[in-house]
Amino acid sequence: MSILPLAHAREFDLIRGFYTGATEADLLVRPGDDCVVLRNGTALSSDASVENVHFRREWLSLEEIGYRAAAAALSDLAAMAAAPIGVLVSLGLPDPDDAALLMRGVRRCLDRFHAALLGGDLTASPQSILMDVTVVGHTTAPVTRSGARPGDGLYVTGALGGAAAAVRAWLDGREPEPAAREVFAAPRPRIAEARWLAERVAPGAMIDLSDGLAGDAAHIAAASGVQLEIDLDTVPVHRSVEAEGAVALAISGGEDYELCFTARPGTIDPLVEAFEQRFGVVLTRVGTVRSGSGVRALQNGADAGPLHAHGYRHFEENRGPAS
Amino acid sequence: MSILPLAHAREFDLIRGFYTGATEADLLVRPGDDCVVLRNGTALSSDASVENVHFRREWLSLEEIGYRAAAAALSDLAAMAAAPIGVLVSLGLPDPDDAALLMRGVRRCLDRFHAALLGGDLTASPQSILMDVTVVGHTTAPVTRSGARPGDGLYVTGALGGAAAAVRAWLDGREPEPAAREVFAAPRPRIAEARWLAERVAPGAMIDLSDGLAGDAAHIAAASGVQLEIDLDTVPVHRSVEAEGAVALAISGGEDYELCFTARPGTIDPLVEAFEQRFGVVLTRVGTVRSGSGVRALQNGADAGPLHAHGYRHFEENRGPAS
Repeated sequence: MSILPLAHAREFDLIRGFYTGATEADLLVRPGDDCVVLRNGTALSSDASVENVHFRREWLSLEEIGYRAAAAALSDLAAMAAAPIGVLVSLGLPDPDDAALLMRGVRRCLDRFHAALLGGDLTASPQSILMDVTVVGHTTAPVTRSGARPGDGLYVTGALGGAAAAVRAWLDGREPEPAAREVFAAPRPRIAEARWLAERVAPGAMIDLSDGLAGDAAHIAAASGVQLEIDLDTVPVHRSVEAEGAVALAISGGEDYELCFTARPGTIDPLVEAFEQRFGVVLTRVGTVRSGSGVRALQNGADAGPLHAHGYRHFEENRGPAS
Repeated sequence: MSILPLAHAREFDLIRGFYTGATEADLLVRPGDDCVVLRNGTALSSDASVENVHFRREWLSLEEIGYRAAAAALSDLAAMAAAPIGVLVSLGLPDPDDAALLMRGVRRCLDRFHAALLGGDLTASPQSILMDVTVVGHTTAPVTRSGARPGDGLYVTGALGGAAAAVRAWLDGREPEPAAREVFAAPRPRIAEARWLAERVAPGAMIDLSDGLAGDAAHIAAASGVQLEIDLDTVPVHRSVEAEGAVALAISGGEDYELCFTARPGTIDPLVEAFEQRFGVVLTRVGTVRSGSGVRALQNGADAGPLHAHGYRHFEENRGPAS
């Protein structure tokens, strides 16, 4: 999902209504999670991006657009703790000469995360650049969205809100902070981090933060049949996010592509230091899994009402649920 | 590739230049064939289509557009003699309400060919409908484009030129013949036919006819390092194609999605009757594999020069190589 205002299609929930029973497919993980996983361990996901919906050419170079599309797609493999095999890239281009720079960005991302370019398609597109990246990975022990249990802690990697801060700056006519721009232009799919965690603990549920913490926590809550309580005072905010409204942007801004997962607190606490040293990425507990449904905010130790998933615009209208 | 005049991107040959070495992927079939095939037998291919490039809304209903996109993508599995597992469908839509009808068409095609809807993406697209269908199948014995050997016969299923006849009619402002319209709107990926053949003979090389017989034969010739000789007098022409220029349209018009394959003549001849009875589809020898390179035409038993792959527009300019 995009954080740009014009990208408000109802996205996956809408397309999910059309899933077949998949009786032929014999699946390890059914559609509706970050990836579908075939019985042979092949994990698959598609991620489309469209010019002026997910990115603007005034904001990013073609090479950055290609890199970002590949990284966002690979992040769906991270969310399952799957190992990348490769990607198929379909491009629709008004000018076929743009393919070279876009694909150079894709290649740079694939090389960095050890994935191959497996195929794709290239077609004319009259008005705007479109990219659809299908990622292919492998896992025999996928971590889904549906394994959160009451009593689990809720964790995130990294600091949140950087990508949203960049977009907000561009929409306001400003140049974003370089650090925020970097998060938006070159997100880092947490593939190695997810696999390291999955080898050492048994995450209950995991997702990558594409819709924002509030929205993606709601996906876990719905898939697991639990309530997630997020302590707003603990949410790690990216250093580029301005103080005013920082937490609101951090929890509702999308496309940070950090991991969000649940696990028994006792299994994570002893590993935090090793994780942070190894990856140079903070690992933070931001909440608790409860019985119930939906996502609630906690602030100053007190219940601060339900958290909605509609992004920071909603948040701004309401001045935030907790303020 | 599209047969519409505005779709002249250089397509796969261009994107192929960006393939990585795929060392991570451990592939049974490398990129550049109809599908890539992973070592575990998973076959993958993506097929993008764009409004006003591959189809027009004046020509087809939304449901037909969805059906056709799924069928065209599944045809890449047929070309490898792979069994379908399912598809991922990414949609970009100016009006998200169009998703329901498009996906109804996709579903109807998937049900018919025993494939599941495995996932996808849905996004806003400011100007035009775009669809990218990634097919997922399975084969442990893929038939590639590279196995044609001198002395093999060259065969096609079905009759050719129907889809091109429909497009030509629409571009001329006429309604196409119903039979031609049907080929364009609801192509039949020859999945069962390909698997039946692969179980009984060992096709040397196989491809599905998306670019037209002349163009797709050139792909086999290049991949196999051979020359293909096509006897124009034997090419089966779809009944909807008008007499004048019929063979030219049949060999250069794309998107019939019939199979084209090579095999030892002695292995095919005894099976033709059983094939045609079982599938209600003709099976015709249209040429011979020779040493050399490229594609040459034979007419009235005499060499009629090289056949080029640039579609019937080229053909019309030259009045055909053999006329």
